[in-house]
Amino acid sequence: MEHKLLLLTSDNDRYRSLLGSCHLPHLTLLGDDPQSILDADIWLAEPPLAAPLVGHAKQIKWMQSTYAGVDLLVKPRLRRDYQLTNVRGIFGPLMSEYLFGYLLAHQRQHKQYQSQQAEKIWRPGNFRTLQGQELLLLGTGNIAKHLAQTAKHFGMRVTGINRGAKPTIGFDSVDTLANLAHHIDKADAIAAILPSTPQTQGALNQELLAMMKPEAILFNLGRGDVLDLDALYAQLLSHPQQNAILDVFNQEPLPQEHPIWSLENVIITPHIAAPSFPEQVVEIFANNYHKFIKGEPLSHKVNFERGY
Amino acid sequence: MEHKLLLLTSDNDRYRSLLGSCHLPHLTLLGDDPQSILDADIWLAEPPLAAPLVGHAKQIKWMQSTYAGVDLLVKPRLRRDYQLTNVRGIFGPLMSEYLFGYLLAHQRQHKQYQSQQAEKIWRPGNFRTLQGQELLLLGTGNIAKHLAQTAKHFGMRVTGINRGAKPTIGFDSVDTLANLAHHIDKADAIAAILPSTPQTQGALNQELLAMMKPEAILFNLGRGDVLDLDALYAQLLSHPQQNAILDVFNQEPLPQEHPIWSLENVIITPHIAAPSFPEQVVEIFANNYHKFIKGEPLSHKVNFERGY
Repeated sequence: MEHKLLLLTSDNDRYRSLLGSCHLPHLTLLGDDPQSILDADIWLAEPPLAAPLVGHAKQIKWMQSTYAGVDLLVKPRLRRDYQLTNVRGIFGPLMSEYLFGYLLAHQRQHKQYQSQQAEKIWRPGNFRTLQGQELLLLGTGNIAKHLAQTAKHFGMRVTGINRGAKPTIGFDSVDTLANLAHHIDKADAIAAILPSTPQTQGALNQELLAMMKPEAILFNLGRGDVLDLDALYAQLLSHPQQNAILDVFNQEPLPQEHPIWSLENVIITPHIAAPSFPEQVVEIFANNYHKFIKGEPLSHKVNFERGY
Repeated sequence: MEHKLLLLTSDNDRYRSLLGSCHLPHLTLLGDDPQSILDADIWLAEPPLAAPLVGHAKQIKWMQSTYAGVDLLVKPRLRRDYQLTNVRGIFGPLMSEYLFGYLLAHQRQHKQYQSQQAEKIWRPGNFRTLQGQELLLLGTGNIAKHLAQTAKHFGMRVTGINRGAKPTIGFDSVDTLANLAHHIDKADAIAAILPSTPQTQGALNQELLAMMKPEAILFNLGRGDVLDLDALYAQLLSHPQQNAILDVFNQEPLPQEHPIWSLENVIITPHIAAPSFPEQVVEIFANNYHKFIKGEPLSHKVNFERGY
């Protein structure tokens, strides 16, 4: 049987060239015209581009998302009569670089030494180390597991939060989101790597943020809507010793008028913590394609109900 | 037999209190007067304070340095008729925090995102990762081994440089200082953690610095005189894409008039990469004291000839 692939990414030329060098039998890559939406049985797509179009598809059997985050595709009103797979397993190392880069920069006072250097001041400061500090990870999936491993290497204690508090290798302890209040007040660093689901949306609310340690540092690396950004702004405005490092936002780009852009104790980055490299996405797609044509279960299949 | 301890540190009160809570039988802690220099058979001392005084000692049998670096005490004109021990094994994790903090900050472009945030600009940049990069470590001792382990965790390839090119666990390859030229041109990151010895002094000279990759980043974390600072200044002035992170200098504090303070592509920190915590030093001293009174070989003994 012949299959027809629709490519819906912001980097189609790159994907086209990478797909061209893969062995993908019986697969025709369709053009960028509207007819392709009707004809394709396989989509390789970015969720923001696919979400408004998927309802028009006539033949779709399988969509491989190029993102990890598929919340735009699992919304209740959208069709669910096809297999949706996302990309997993490639973001851990990148996320670790991001999280520990900023965590170490904070703990080891890069900013302070930077301003001392500008004044040619030689003044050793009070010393801080990650050793013995407590990291609270919201999420215990592949990415969180990798972060936990890096944290253990740096001598931290790691608590994970997941749905059922199921024990997870590499974490010192695990608890549920409902019990977050028992942990957030003990954490030196908190990192949310949660998918966006009805359960996680707004999980980091005003009440919980108010419980953070006086010098806590908070990372949001998963989905923007897990965090109440306005509550965080108010919290950090009144607690200048607390810090936040934010890479994801409910609205991206973060609107220029949002006052959190200007807080001294906030670092904002443009969703760059762990980008999908087309090379890695195509590798995942190709592996799944071979399973698809053999009728085998696909890897990284999304559960529409659960939302990830 | 009774022993007499002279304390020569810039934090004597702290050390006095920590020693007071240790079980150190038959040990009297002497006062801070000149007579103590004559009477003490054991010194717990910072090398810069001990070096000018050790020649006057009458009873010295053993000196525990509070630093790792003892080059000031092994100079040829100084006495060698006592046992000198230093502190080791405690700096690896701290040095890793320092090196990987700054390396990740550089690779993941903290500076660029900081200036974009100041302008409220949302612009994902070209992406870099440590994965697959080459780290060249000058030194393969305890600290370098720990750095190598962190580097492997982040997916780097690691080459070590030591005296005899002896294979060392955790390094992908090892070679001698004499062969540095065969490696420095392949390294994405270079970190010197060498002691100061006649062999290592000036090892990073103009000729070798000129061989660095166009975007190499160089760390000096061991001893200042391993690096020709003026040659590095000239090199970095003419190669703005290269960077250096410097924590140790031949003269400390680094003189205000040195032009390297002001280079955009240089970060200067005041010898804070891996400080000796008095708690850890006292633990090492106490272990060695128990060996000393039993006549057992001391840990971390310095070889005066070799210089470390």
